[in-house]
Amino acid sequence: MSKEITSREQDYSQWYIDLVLKGGLADYSAVKGCMVIKPYGYALWEKMRDALDKMFKDTGHVNAYFPLFVPKSLFEAEEKNAEGFAKECAVVTHYRLKTDPDNKGKLMVDPEAKLEEELIVRPTSEAIIWNTYKGWIQSYRDLPLLINQWANVVRWEMRTRLFLRTAEFLWQEGHTAHATAMEAVAETKQMLEVYADFAENWMAVPVIKGVKTANERFAGAEDTYCIEALMQDGKALQAGTSHFLGQNFAKAFDVKFSDKENKLDYVWATSWGVSTRLIGGLVMAHSDDDGLILPPRIAPVQVVIVPIYKGDDQKARIDDKVKNELIPALKAANISVKYDDNDNARPGWKFAEYELKGVPVRIALGARDLDNNVAEVARRDTKEKASYSLDGLPEKIISLLDEIQVNIYNRAKAYRDSHITEVNSWDEFMQVLDEKTGFVSAHWDGTGETEEKIKELSKATIRCIPLDNKQEAGKCVLTGNPSTQRVLFARAY
Amino acid sequence: MSKEITSREQDYSQWYIDLVLKGGLADYSAVKGCMVIKPYGYALWEKMRDALDKMFKDTGHVNAYFPLFVPKSLFEAEEKNAEGFAKECAVVTHYRLKTDPDNKGKLMVDPEAKLEEELIVRPTSEAIIWNTYKGWIQSYRDLPLLINQWANVVRWEMRTRLFLRTAEFLWQEGHTAHATAMEAVAETKQMLEVYADFAENWMAVPVIKGVKTANERFAGAEDTYCIEALMQDGKALQAGTSHFLGQNFAKAFDVKFSDKENKLDYVWATSWGVSTRLIGGLVMAHSDDDGLILPPRIAPVQVVIVPIYKGDDQKARIDDKVKNELIPALKAANISVKYDDNDNARPGWKFAEYELKGVPVRIALGARDLDNNVAEVARRDTKEKASYSLDGLPEKIISLLDEIQVNIYNRAKAYRDSHITEVNSWDEFMQVLDEKTGFVSAHWDGTGETEEKIKELSKATIRCIPLDNKQEAGKCVLTGNPSTQRVLFARAY
Ligand SMILES: [Zn+2]
Ligand SMILES: [Zn+2]
Repeated sequence: MSKEITSREQDYSQWYIDLVLKGGLADYSAVKGCMVIKPYGYALWEKMRDALDKMFKDTGHVNAYFPLFVPKSLFEAEEKNAEGFAKECAVVTHYRLKTDPDNKGKLMVDPEAKLEEELIVRPTSEAIIWNTYKGWIQSYRDLPLLINQWANVVRWEMRTRLFLRTAEFLWQEGHTAHATAMEAVAETKQMLEVYADFAENWMAVPVIKGVKTANERFAGAEDTYCIEALMQDGKALQAGTSHFLGQNFAKAFDVKFSDKENKLDYVWATSWGVSTRLIGGLVMAHSDDDGLILPPRIAPVQVVIVPIYKGDDQKARIDDKVKNELIPALKAANISVKYDDNDNARPGWKFAEYELKGVPVRIALGARDLDNNVAEVARRDTKEKASYSLDGLPEKIISLLDEIQVNIYNRAKAYRDSHITEVNSWDEFMQVLDEKTGFVSAHWDGTGETEEKIKELSKATIRCIPLDNKQEAGKCVLTGNPSTQRVLFARAY
Repeated sequence: MSKEITSREQDYSQWYIDLVLKGGLADYSAVKGCMVIKPYGYALWEKMRDALDKMFKDTGHVNAYFPLFVPKSLFEAEEKNAEGFAKECAVVTHYRLKTDPDNKGKLMVDPEAKLEEELIVRPTSEAIIWNTYKGWIQSYRDLPLLINQWANVVRWEMRTRLFLRTAEFLWQEGHTAHATAMEAVAETKQMLEVYADFAENWMAVPVIKGVKTANERFAGAEDTYCIEALMQDGKALQAGTSHFLGQNFAKAFDVKFSDKENKLDYVWATSWGVSTRLIGGLVMAHSDDDGLILPPRIAPVQVVIVPIYKGDDQKARIDDKVKNELIPALKAANISVKYDDNDNARPGWKFAEYELKGVPVRIALGARDLDNNVAEVARRDTKEKASYSLDGLPEKIISLLDEIQVNIYNRAKAYRDSHITEVNSWDEFMQVLDEKTGFVSAHWDGTGETEEKIKELSKATIRCIPLDNKQEAGKCVLTGNPSTQRVLFARAY
């Protein structure tokens, strides 16, 4: 190995950090709680962003950009939302520095440049956006308003973890406005389906679609829908949320529209978002002790080609094959391919490096291979190697990438499916959480108090009430009180 | 007209604001100095961003993302840079709000959540990036490092103007690290060429490439190269800058590398950026009193089709032609086309609306046109209308778009070229600035004092010393002192 990776068994947390740092996805920064997204990690985010962006546009949404700052008076207008985020707000109070008279070469905040009203660095943009929508919506003809924003947001965190929990992160936030509650609910559900589609078919991460309990709802929402994924250590990860906001923000910002009969009513709202947190989930869902395993559809480099040669003659023959045949054929099929003929590293070092980086397919091509009209093809997901004929190789690589995409998904799904466990007693509940881990499907009496108590006792939260959940009579796993359905509990990131 | 636009002659500033607001590019926000980029404006920015991003990648750059915040101690490390930006810094001093005991339902900044060290909202990212590069660069093998970032930045401004000067704006900032001064200078010049290529061939805005005087240099740079454009009111606009930073940031952040002989040296740096300000320049370079004129290569909608019909039968026949023939043919050629068959607005209203929005080509198609196998095609740049045969129409539209792109550029270039005036006396200098406007090419004695004095007297600044400037003996237009070359002055945005 080129770089030492802690094994999952030894220390799962450290394994994760090793992959993120040594795999070139991100780095720590000098700013407490903020990370640097490195070029390879950002290329991954670009692939994810572009796929999502197309899905948003295909469902009728357009992008826009709203201010980074929210004046405090706007921020506090929707009280529940404000309360929910108040404890994690970065606040701008001054707009100028000046030279520090007591410290040569140093600067200080200019006390004379104090803002009359503090500005909150957006933790989410409902407030600033609904304040803007007020000017854009008068009539039913202005609805629906289907806008998305790609942006950075800040939520101050004391304990951070690369990608999974950082003070600043990148995300998209959709904010839509509708004439009826029904349309807004339909939009909320549609975007949940978009997220599930993206998670499963692009990230190869199976997800459970559900609705959050009142305790776990987004601050200011009437209902929060979510997709929940399972990591390899048996902990759940919320991978996306879609909120039905009712008329809460319309009322807070006085956004009314006149309907076809000229009757005034408040507008109905949704918001929905996914973030760079998804990258953390992606790493933990698929990777192994040798490094990242990236699904082909979002891998920044899908195929790497490593030449194995002695001397310029052999190199020239391999170059010819690779540059004039393989690469053009793969690029024509929109495959992102890298030819690593860097002379300063040995093939073995390169193999380990691209395993660490999760490149789905590696082609090694030597002079003897050329003579035999074959190449050695290694797939990252299973680490299988095979000798492939050079005839029709590009077509075979293309179908191999598809096969890998499916295999990664199926493997994650098999693990996830085998880690949803029905339990019927508190002892079982705790035992499954502690030993088997994963989702625990259990009856719950429907009260926030019980939910809170279970969380205290077990550190597990209700991840969701799955959509189309089976209704069945039962007894709450903690209190024994009557229950009408099982819900999914898990310890979570 | 659907919306009243102030004419340029009447009030150029108001004309600009009318176009931006009524053309749907941007809106004011509740945050002083910050704007909302509306969906149409953002779609334009996306087109510009994607074109630039491809040019950056084609020249070997990769994207990454660095923190929004810069701790004050890092910010002040490169003294000139810090001094240059100190007066426009938004400063985060607290990380929490709490409920205000004196105001029910209101929040206040929690005085107990004061940061030990203030965080500056990045006005530019050299400091945070070079602090990070310190950990990434050890040897010549780590160089060059060619990274770009797409991000928001904040520079507090008292007097703002949509797109042209806003407290928050979107931009890209390239930050590269090199082993030699020569390589860094070559990178600086290469990126200037990229910007000029983009401005001229995508935005259709002719630019003058040059270098800034010491007074006008980026704070912390050894040399600032720039492209300068001319607006229709005769004022210049700096459309992009590329800085050779020498070893200033490497020294401030102690970033050294060992060369092939194991000798340690400081790294050489560049940075370069363009921003949403370009949109303001685009509007002012081409548009007219009827609205925006957008170059086809970056127009969000390149072709709009408006049906003209009475009754469902006529509509059905037009729909068939448009949806089954025209749109598929245009889309196959990657033309972005909109079919506006909204029944609530009359054709005349739509015509005015798409003129306002600067859609390069409008096709009107009526039932009688269909009978005659023709369509009415209007081009936005010249407002010419012509009847085109429906046979081969898509091909003709494609070449018409190319023609419009060229025409818009040529028109702007003719205007710009006729507004570069050589002057040889102070009287002439002032007269040209006041009456003819545009760039004034004049001898200058090369001192910062004279430059400053000219600025005070005339409100004109030295826009640049053009690259490959002709050397000729002359006398400074203000002082009469000897000069070796003419430089370009203008009043500027
Ligand atoms: Zn859920
Ligand atoms: Zn210049």
